[in-house]
Amino acid sequence: MEEVLYFNELYDLYNGLLTDKQREYFEDYYFNNLSFSEMAENYEVSRNAIFKQIHIVTDKLKEYESILKLHEKRKKLEEIVKNIDNSELKIALEELI
Amino acid sequence: MEEVLYFNELYDLYNGLLTDKQREYFEDYYFNNLSFSEMAENYEVSRNAIFKQIHIVTDKLKEYESILKLHEKRKKLEEIVKNIDNSELKIALEELI
Repeated sequence: MEEVLYFNELYDLYNGLLTDKQREYFEDYYFNNLSFSEMAENYEVSRNAIFKQIHIVTDKLKEYESILKLHEKRKKLEEIVKNIDNSELKIALEELI
Repeated sequence: MEEVLYFNELYDLYNGLLTDKQREYFEDYYFNNLSFSEMAENYEVSRNAIFKQIHIVTDKLKEYESILKLHEKRKKLEEIVKNIDNSELKIALEELI
């Protein structure tokens, strides 16, 4: 479950770098909660092909994070913002999250 | 000149997403100030091939910025940090730039 949340957060940051097809697979599986079997039927491919594609997409997301570290930086910024009292500054920083 | 600075800043943010070859071309041209002719000689390709490759790389950098907007966000964060008095907070935020 924790991994699902993590992938969702990575997807939020990096989905623009994926192909349309990769976004479709990811959203079907992680957002729409379709099973591999259901997706295999919809896309008319084997369950194994779906399984592989989902892995390719999550590997891509992890690769982007290992290069750009946007998730790590976002978490740090959120932590910093949480402890700020000045509301004007807080809002300005929140816009960057 | 301003464009060169901009490309350098984009390169700083996104070079991890480029291939080794793309990084080499970019650095030869923008960091080492080699001319297209010199690069053509070194890589044993035409000047035109070098010209095209440099364009492909700068287009890639601009594409990444249009998707992720890290340069835009970095500039905004720098602007915010400039006006902060609290030095502890300043340092914490500077680490994210």
